[in-house]
Amino acid sequence: MENTRTNPIVLLTDFGLSDGFVGVLKGVIAGISPDSKVIDLSHGVAAQDVLQAAFLLYIHADYFQKGTIFCVVVDPGVGSERKAICIRTSDFYFIGPDNGVLWPAADANGIKEIRELNNPGFFLDSISHTFHGRDIFAPAAAHLSARGADISRLGPVMDACHTIGFPEPKEEVDLMELTVLYKDRFGNLTLNLRHGPFQQAVREGSWQMVLNGHPIEHFHLSYSRAEPDQLFLIPASSGFMEVSVKNADAAEYLGAQVGDRAKLYLKRGG
Amino acid sequence: MENTRTNPIVLLTDFGLSDGFVGVLKGVIAGISPDSKVIDLSHGVAAQDVLQAAFLLYIHADYFQKGTIFCVVVDPGVGSERKAICIRTSDFYFIGPDNGVLWPAADANGIKEIRELNNPGFFLDSISHTFHGRDIFAPAAAHLSARGADISRLGPVMDACHTIGFPEPKEEVDLMELTVLYKDRFGNLTLNLRHGPFQQAVREGSWQMVLNGHPIEHFHLSYSRAEPDQLFLIPASSGFMEVSVKNADAAEYLGAQVGDRAKLYLKRGG
Amino acid sequence: MENTRTNPIVLLTDFGLSDGFVGVLKGVIAGISPDSKVIDLSHGVAAQDVLQAAFLLYIHADYFQKGTIFCVVVDPGVGSERKAICIRTSDFYFIGPDNGVLWPAADANGIKEIRELNNPGFFLDSISHTFHGRDIFAPAAAHLSARGADISRLGPVMDACHTIGFPEPKEEVDLMELTVLYKDRFGNLTLNLRHGPFQQAVREGSWQMVLNGHPIEHFHLSYSRAEPDQLFLIPASSGFMEVSVKNADAAEYLGAQVGDRAKLYLKRGG
Repeated sequence: MENTRTNPIVLLTDFGLSDGFVGVLKGVIAGISPDSKVIDLSHGVAAQDVLQAAFLLYIHADYFQKGTIFCVVVDPGVGSERKAICIRTSDFYFIGPDNGVLWPAADANGIKEIRELNNPGFFLDSISHTFHGRDIFAPAAAHLSARGADISRLGPVMDACHTIGFPEPKEEVDLMELTVLYKDRFGNLTLNLRHGPFQQAVREGSWQMVLNGHPIEHFHLSYSRAEPDQLFLIPASSGFMEVSVKNADAAEYLGAQVGDRAKLYLKRGG
Repeated sequence: MENTRTNPIVLLTDFGLSDGFVGVLKGVIAGISPDSKVIDLSHGVAAQDVLQAAFLLYIHADYFQKGTIFCVVVDPGVGSERKAICIRTSDFYFIGPDNGVLWPAADANGIKEIRELNNPGFFLDSISHTFHGRDIFAPAAAHLSARGADISRLGPVMDACHTIGFPEPKEEVDLMELTVLYKDRFGNLTLNLRHGPFQQAVREGSWQMVLNGHPIEHFHLSYSRAEPDQLFLIPASSGFMEVSVKNADAAEYLGAQVGDRAKLYLKRGG
Repeated sequence: MENTRTNPIVLLTDFGLSDGFVGVLKGVIAGISPDSKVIDLSHGVAAQDVLQAAFLLYIHADYFQKGTIFCVVVDPGVGSERKAICIRTSDFYFIGPDNGVLWPAADANGIKEIRELNNPGFFLDSISHTFHGRDIFAPAAAHLSARGADISRLGPVMDACHTIGFPEPKEEVDLMELTVLYKDRFGNLTLNLRHGPFQQAVREGSWQMVLNGHPIEHFHLSYSRAEPDQLFLIPASSGFMEVSVKNADAAEYLGAQVGDRAKLYLKRGG
C-alpha cells in the first residue's frame, strides 16, 4: 500500500526533462520498490551546479514529511574517486555524491550518521562510469524506502563528508555586501540575507540597496503591494530577502545573475 | 489505498519546472494526504497569465474523473485582499485565488456552491505573504482529498466570485473578427471560434481567413491530410478551430501570438 | 493496491510540458485505471521526430520492470490511415501509432505478437482526428493495465508492422563513417557506434575522429578523467559512444546536431 509502509523518495537533479534520464530513475525505483511514492523536487538545476542544487534542497526540505529520502544527482565527479553517501538526519535521509550538495540541508536538519554507499546489493548489477543516478543512487534510495530505511546495511560509517556553504554577507559599520544566491523562473533574485538580519539592520534608520548600478529603496511584504514597475525588496517564502520588480522579471531588468553582488547601505538613526 | 478513498488532485500553475515550487506543493500534499494521487495539468502557464490558465482548465477539465480537485495557482494578487476560494460544481472541486481563473471551467460544469477558504485548520501553520500555493491552496486541496471532499468546513459560503470570460467573436454580415486564444508547443494557434459556429458560418458559401496579412483558405479534418507547408484551419481536439501549418510552426510562420486578431470573410452563396 | 495488480504505464511523447496534453493523458488513464502507476519517460522529443523517440525507447526500455506498458505518442500521421497498434514482446507491451516508433525497442526485446487497436471498447467514446493520444492510445494502455494486460481483445493480429532502423556505421578498411544519433541536455553527442565495435576497431592501432572539422583524439571511461575543456570520446550509459567536452556543451562547441557525420580514421598497427 503506497506511502504507509515505504518512505517517499524526492528526486533533485540537473538532468532536465527532455532526455529520458529522469524517467529511467523512476523505472529503476519502481522495479525495486513499486509502492514508493516518488516526487520531483526539480530537475532544472543548471548543469553540474552543485551549489544551486544544495540551495534548493536547503530551502525546501522542511516541507517534506518525516522519513523522506532525498536522492540528489548533481554529480560532476561521476566515475572519479568521489564517494557515494547517505546522510541520516533528525527527520530525513539524503543520498547523493559526496561533493557537498547534501551538506547544507543535512546540517540544518541535524546530522545523525553518514554512511558510504558501498554495498553492491543495493546497486544495479552493472555499474556504468557515467550514470550513477541510475546505477547507484536511485537503487539505493529505492531499497532504503522499501526496507523501512535501515541505513546500516548500505555501507560503513564515515567520520565526515565534504561540506559546502553559501556565501555569507560581509558586514561593515554602515554597509552589508550581499550576493545573489538564486534566480527563480519569475526573475526574482534571492540574496544571501535572511528576513531577521535584514529587519535588524534597517530597524534603526534609513537604507538603500544598489545592485548592478540600480538603487533599490522600497520594501513590501507582498508582490501585490508594490507600485507598477517598482523595484523592491521582499521577504521571500524561502526565508531569504529577494529583489523583485512588480509584474516583471527583476533579473532581466537589472541584467543580474547568480553570483552578482549587492550593497546595502545603512544610515543608523538617519 | 490510493485513489479509492481519496479524490485526485490536479495541479495547474505558472511556476515552471526549473525551481522547486511544484515539488514543494507535492511534498505538502503528501504530508497531509499521502494516498492522494496528484496529476500535473501544466506548470507552463505564462507568468501571472490568469486568462491562459483559465483557458487550459476550461478545455481540459472534462477529461478528469468525477470528484477531481483542481488546485490552480496563478495568483498575481497573492498577499493582497483577494480571497482564496473553493468552487464545487456538478463533477469537480476548484481551489484557487478569487481572480477569475477558476470561473470558465467551473461555470461550464455547473456551479453548486462557492466557499471562502478561511479556516486555518486547512492551511499550514505559518502562512507566507508570497507563496499561498504552498501555505493555503495545496494544503486545502490535500485536506479536501483526504476527508472525502466535504467543503462545508473550509469556510463560509460566498454569493459570488470574480468572473472572467474569453473574448467572443465579433460577427458582422460577411465577416467574423476572431482572436487567437492560445498557442501550443507545436505552434498551432487556437481561435475563439468553436467547431459548430465555424461550420455554420461557412456552410452556405466560400470563405477566406486572414491572419497577420496571410490568407488561409484550406480546411482539413486532420493534420495528415494537408499538403506540405500548407496553411490551414482544423477543428482541434479542444473544441475550437486552430490555424496550423503542415509539419511546421504556424505561430512562427505567421509571426502570430496570443491576442492577435484574425478576420474570417464569408461569401454567402458565393 | 498500486502496482501489484496493475502494469505500470510509461509515457513517451513529443507533447512538451507547457500545454495540458500530458496532464490530460494522465487524467484519462486515472479515470479508467486509477491504481496504475504512470511514469514519464520523456515528453521532450522534438516535434514529430519519430526516430528520436524510437531511440529513447530503445536505449531506456530495459530499465523498466517486466510487464511495463510503453505508450508512445509521436504521431505525425494522426487522423490518416496509419493504424494504431500494440506489440507484445518478451517483457513488455508497446502501444502507439504504426509508424515504426515502437519497432527498434520491441524488436530488441523479442516480438511475440502485434495487434491492431480497433476495438472501440478500449477507446474514449468520442474520437478526435487530432489527439489519438488522449482518445485511443492512453485509454488502451489504461485498459490493458487494469485488466492484467490480455491484449487479445484489443483487435486482430497483424502479420507485420512498419519498421525503422537507426543509421548503421559505414565501414571501410581504415575508416568508419558515423552519424550523430542523439544530443542530450548536456550537449553530449551520441554516435551510432556501440562500445564493443569501437573497442574492437581501435584495439589494433591508433585512431582519430573528425566531427565538423574538429579532431577528437582522446578517450576516457568517465567525464571526470578528462582534462579541462578537453574534447573526448566516452562509452556512454546508453551502450553507444558519445562525444563530450569536459564541463562544457559538446554540441555547442562543435556546432553539431543530430544527423551530422563523423569520421573515425583507423591506423591498424600504427
